[in-house]
This record gives sequence, structure tokens and C-alpha cells, in this order.
Amino acid sequence: MSTSQNRSLKLEPVSGSQHAVRLTISNPPINLTNSVLLAELHGYLTYLESNPDKAPKVAVISSDHADIWVSHLDLHIVSAQYPLPSSEGESGHFLHLLGHILRLFRTFPVLFVAEVNGLAVGGGNEFAVNMDMRFAGPAARFGVPEVAGGIVHGGGLQSLTKLIGPGRALEMMTSSRALTATEAEKYGLVNRAFSTANELRKYVDALAARIAKFPQGGIAGTKQGVRECLDGVGSVNTDMQRLGQLAHTGDAQGSISKLIEFGGDQSKGDFELGLPDTADQLWV
Amino acid sequence: MSTSQNRSLKLEPVSGSQHAVRLTISNPPINLTNSVLLAELHGYLTYLESNPDKAPKVAVISSDHADIWVSHLDLHIVSAQYPLPSSEGESGHFLHLLGHILRLFRTFPVLFVAEVNGLAVGGGNEFAVNMDMRFAGPAARFGVPEVAGGIVHGGGLQSLTKLIGPGRALEMMTSSRALTATEAEKYGLVNRAFSTANELRKYVDALAARIAKFPQGGIAGTKQGVRECLDGVGSVNTDMQRLGQLAHTGDAQGSISKLIEFGGDQSKGDFELGLPDTADQLWV
Amino acid sequence: MSTSQNRSLKLEPVSGSQHAVRLTISNPPINLTNSVLLAELHGYLTYLESNPDKAPKVAVISSDHADIWVSHLDLHIVSAQYPLPSSEGESGHFLHLLGHILRLFRTFPVLFVAEVNGLAVGGGNEFAVNMDMRFAGPAARFGVPEVAGGIVHGGGLQSLTKLIGPGRALEMMTSSRALTATEAEKYGLVNRAFSTANELRKYVDALAARIAKFPQGGIAGTKQGVRECLDGVGSVNTDMQRLGQLAHTGDAQGSISKLIEFGGDQSKGDFELGLPDTADQLWV
Repeated sequence: MSTSQNRSLKLEPVSGSQHAVRLTISNPPINLTNSVLLAELHGYLTYLESNPDKAPKVAVISSDHADIWVSHLDLHIVSAQYPLPSSEGESGHFLHLLGHILRLFRTFPVLFVAEVNGLAVGGGNEFAVNMDMRFAGPAARFGVPEVAGGIVHGGGLQSLTKLIGPGRALEMMTSSRALTATEAEKYGLVNRAFSTANELRKYVDALAARIAKFPQGGIAGTKQGVRECLDGVGSVNTDMQRLGQLAHTGDAQGSISKLIEFGGDQSKGDFELGLPDTADQLWV
Repeated sequence: MSTSQNRSLKLEPVSGSQHAVRLTISNPPINLTNSVLLAELHGYLTYLESNPDKAPKVAVISSDHADIWVSHLDLHIVSAQYPLPSSEGESGHFLHLLGHILRLFRTFPVLFVAEVNGLAVGGGNEFAVNMDMRFAGPAARFGVPEVAGGIVHGGGLQSLTKLIGPGRALEMMTSSRALTATEAEKYGLVNRAFSTANELRKYVDALAARIAKFPQGGIAGTKQGVRECLDGVGSVNTDMQRLGQLAHTGDAQGSISKLIEFGGDQSKGDFELGLPDTADQLWV
Repeated sequence: MSTSQNRSLKLEPVSGSQHAVRLTISNPPINLTNSVLLAELHGYLTYLESNPDKAPKVAVISSDHADIWVSHLDLHIVSAQYPLPSSEGESGHFLHLLGHILRLFRTFPVLFVAEVNGLAVGGGNEFAVNMDMRFAGPAARFGVPEVAGGIVHGGGLQSLTKLIGPGRALEMMTSSRALTATEAEKYGLVNRAFSTANELRKYVDALAARIAKFPQGGIAGTKQGVRECLDGVGSVNTDMQRLGQLAHTGDAQGSISKLIEFGGDQSKGDFELGLPDTADQLWV
């Protein structure tokens, strides 16, 4: 998809990779989850759904706003007193788009990586916790104002609870207080927190480019197995069947041959001792 | 409920809040989970069940004992050699009360907050892990002597495993060694550990009073969603339906209007950048 | 079982305990999960299955290799280009053994403790995460090269995700980069990491010997309850029924009597205040 017609999204390759993209959200003044952002993000994801051959293996989602990653849902979408101008569209339509976006983050076979260095609040936090991984810079703050507003964190409650456990999820959701980057790392909301925006960017770019070198089948199968685990329907048997099917592919058999060759037929040496890190030598 | 007739429980408001209470357990000499404590705690909780309009939003549970938060079940309740005096009641009855208390902690729409600064052992640990959140002071110790005693941590096993993961839960439950406050925080058994009893009290009081300002619907809905998550029956759809119902209430619509007004119609400013923390300005 | 005929396994008691064993894996040059190791490990575990009275309560699994705990599956078992010599056996047979070994780690009523001070990679990581607890020395590294090889971490995906959460599990499995001992402890993959091999050994030996003093019923019931929790079929009711059955055994009733006697009938003193740690005095 060309995103040149998009106002709120900028798409570019990561480190020149064909298979890793960076999606920068730019929706001033506060990166609100409004009709424009919802429609354009939904458009991008459903384009990938219809054109899976054009989908990247990894999509990093970041923001060009100094203080905000992604802010909450446009309140006019849910306000009776201050409703959305009818010219902008139907409220119900945009709530549907939000639900579909979150479902695609959870299930579409692309690894969605949230690179958060600013406020992720309300709908913005829903985006983050429904993605596959999260990394934080020093300005990251994660927050849930919904309970203070009389509602619940509908699209994020399940994922958040699975990430940080019930006790901390309940505190975060009912207290309307933000987690800092350091707390988010300590509790497992993000994989890692970094001291500078530069380190964050460098780590995420390297990770995305590295993963994007590996065959798509294993990446997609891994995401699916983890999703089944989270949905309470995972099993070793299913994962083993998936492994069995993938093992017959050319990607896998070619890799297995190279692993045997590079490791001196499984002898003691730098390649075997350096696994799993050295396995990137298969894809140079 | 007046608790003036209770011997083992003291009830008082938190920081003058109408909706947050502190329940202090005082059952000398060792805060044993005995017939008195079980009957009185059960009486309080079932009173709330029958009079939900009198229920607080948050209930903090602490102890007035210098070394013990809540100790194990009165062993006479389960001993053949040294049985409970028949004048005290039926063993089976008290085991039933214990099971019902733990179920109410898990499911009744009040946030139960364990403020632990002493030993939580056996039944005491079951109390703690079945509550919604736990905070620890320097004297906190969490322990499971059941396996050393030939049995299992029946009422706490599921909740504990979900809080700290299978590896650490198995070690804690089979080794009969206590976790310190620091370990409990590191493993996620408590949300936070504090260096002094005073800091612990201050944090918990502020948290309880803050949450108690927010509408009951979102608090209850959040607890229910987290419970469904833990019970393996949660779903984004259910949470979204709950959100949809709450969004039509006066509490929610009033909040949404205020959020729009306080934030300058979602413009870049202190209110929006300070979310979710600034959302407490809605309820002053 | 005598393991004297085994080439890849050495069996010895832990600290002279009758009920805790150490199983040292010795399969040069790289502790490969090959036909020999699979057959011998499977032989040991199925021997225990057929002779449960000879099973230990705790089995520590360590390695005598300086750099490797357990390495990946012998690639010849899954290679079309470089297949297993037919003299060595059927590939399908060894994959079946691997699946059965992992299932026995998860379900057989022995606590399997991985003492890891070296590389646990691929199948080796599957061994580790399917055991009940993991402890790490300074040389421990945990890794998953499968996705780089075009497949998935079939036998470890579910357990790993439950241990370290979806975000970190996805990163570990798709990036083909190892976790260090420190990271593994921080993320909850291991219960604890130690700075020296000696401290690791000392801690694990003491833990195994301590647990092995306690009655088998509570250990087995605890493992079963945790397994049910992980499989999404656990419930407080089931655990309570298990408790009820165990409470009638001689082990439990004898312990309860001693607990009452040692604690001065539940009075305030060193025994009660020192619980659960002091409960080992029941078994000296």
C-alpha cells in the first residue's frame, strides 16, 4: 500500500529491510485515536490482510510526537453531550474499526512492536498491550483513565492482566495513575526500558531487522502458538504438529542442512557454543 | 454493619472516605484463623453481600499485631487427636466459612487490599492471595507450611500460581520457606514493598482514598473482567460489552463531558499530557 | 533402576537423601539431545512410571559439561539431506520419545529441578521449561534457534510463554538471541540466578534435600494443582478436595499433632513466629 495519501501514518522500511517496516503515527496535536487515525490504521491493516504477500514480517509502531505515543479515543465518539459531527461519520463505525484493529494486532501474522517513548493512554494503551512486544524510552508512560471516567479499559483489560498479573493490573486500571518506563519494565508490561530515545530506536531497529531475516513460517507459527496460549486453547500437541509441518518446508530443510554444515556436524566449536545467536549466520 | 460486637475485627473509614474502609484484624495471641475470626469475617462479608448499597468500594485489610498479619487455620479444626471443643462449633462449618470468605474476596465487587506487615502463613497466605492487591511492609513474610504438614495449600494454590508463576509457586509451596517482602515484590506476589510501616500505610491509604472517589461501576466491572481473565473465561468482547453498557450511565457521560471540558477539547496542555493522573480532577 | 549401563546419565543421591536424586547428563561432545540421551532418559523416566515406589520426590538435572547444559535435538533426526543412519533407529521413534519425556516432566509426580550452568538451547530449553523449577549459574544461557531454522519451539512454546509472558517469549523465540542468567531470573524463567557454580549447587542441594523430607502426598498434590492451573482446568474446589483427602492420612494427622505440640498449642513463640520455615522440625 502506498500510504502517501495518509495524513496520520508514515510508513518506511527499517534499516533498509524489505520485511520490517516502521509505522510512525503523526496525528497532531495529541495523537488522538480519532476517526482519521482509526480509518487510516484500519485501512493499512486490512490492506495487508487482503495482500498477505505484501505484509512485512515485523511492523514497528512509533510516534513523532515529543510527549505522546498514542492518546485516548476521541471522546466525541462516545459523548452524548458533545457528539461527533455527523460529517465526520458514525460513532459506531469507529468503535467497530477500533475493535477490528486490536483484533488484527493480536492475530494477524505480523509481529507488531510498540516503540513507546511518550504517553500511551486509554485507547493508546489498548494499542500497546494488544501488540506483540513493547519497548519503552525514558518518556514512556502507560495509563488507564477509564475507571476514573466511569467505564472500563475494554480493549486492553485482558491483555494487560496477562502481561503484568492481576494485582498490578487492577491497581493500574482502578487508580488512574500512570506506570513509568521503569515500572513497566519491572512489571513486564514492556520487554525492556532504555535510558535514551536513541538507545531505544537502535535496539528496536536491530531487533526488527534481525527477525525479518528469518523465514516467515516460523514467525507466524510462533505468534499463533503464543496467541493460543493466551486464549487458553494452546497445547504442546498443536505446536508439535505445526513444527512437523514446517519441518518439511524448503526453508526448514535448507536451514537444518546449514546448521549441520556450519556447526561441523554438531561438534564442539564456536558455532554450536554460540547458539542460538550464531543462527543468524544462516541468513546473511 | 456495626462491628462493635466483633472481638477480632475493627472497622474504620480510610482518610475520612465514605467509600474506603480499613478492617484491622486483632485476634491475639497470633491472629489465628480460628472460629472467632472466621465467623466474624464471614459475618461482615455476607452483611455486605445482603446490603450492597452499604458496601465500600475499597476495603484495606491490616493487622494490629506487631509480627503477624494473619496466621494459619486453627489446627484443632482439622486435628483428629486434638479436635475442636464441641462447644466451639462444627469443624466442617468453619471450613465452609473459610471457602466462602475466599470466594467473596475473589468475586464480591469490592477491591480487597491486603496491607501486610508481618507473617501471612497458611490460611493467612490464602487470605492474601485471594484478595485483589497486596502491599508489603518490611516485616512481611509470606509462607506455606502445608506440604511440610502433609497436605496442600488448597485455598491459595491457584491464585498464588497465577501471581508468581509455576516455578516460584512450586518452590514456595513445597519448600516451606517464607518469601520476604523484597522477594514478594520481585516475584509479583505484592504490588509494592515499602521500607517502613509508615510508608506502607501512607501509600495504601492514598491509593484506597483515590480509587474510592471513582464511580463504582467501572471498579466493579474491572474486577469482574480480571476475574474472568483469571478463570479462563475472559474476552475482549465481554469487556467491550461491559464498556458499552457503562458508557450510557450518567457517571460516564458526566465524566466524558468533563474530560472534554477540562482538556480544552482534547488540546495539547497539562490536562491531556498529565493523563491518566489528572483524571482525578473529575472527582474533587 | 541401576543406571550403570547408561552412557549419558549418571544418577546419585543428593546429600545422602533417600528421596532426592541428581541426574547428571554427560553426552560428549556437546550434550546433544540425540538417540542415546533420549533413549536413556526415557528409559529412566518410564522405569519410575512403572515403579513409582522407587521414584524420588525430587530429581535435580544437571550437566557435567563446562559450557553446555543440554543442547538441541540431533539434527539428523529431522534432516532429509543428512538423515539418521538407519542403524541408529527410526527418526519418528526418537521424536516420540522426546514428546513423552517432556510430558513426564510436566505430569509425573516427581519435582524436576533444572540446575542450569551452561547453554540450554532448542531441545535443551524444552527440557528446562517443561521441568518444575529452574535455577541458573553464571554460565547459563537459554535460547531458541528454531525460528531462525524455519520451524517453531514446539515442545517449549507453551511452557515458556507461561513462565515469562507473551511479549518476552515472542522476542526470545523469534529473535534467536539467548537470555543470560540475570535476564532469566528477572523475567521469571529461573527461580534464582547465582554468581558462582558453587552457590548454585549448594542452594539446589539444600532445597532438594529439604523438600525430600516432606511427605510425598503433598508434594505430588501441589504439582498436580499447579499443572491443572497451567492447563486451564485448575480450581479451588479441586484443590480443596485434594486437601480434604490428604488431611485424613497418617502423615497429615501426625504433622498436625506435632504442629500443635511444637507450637505450644498455637501460642506466640519462636515456632509459630518462625513458620513456615520452622515446619521442617517435624521431619528431623
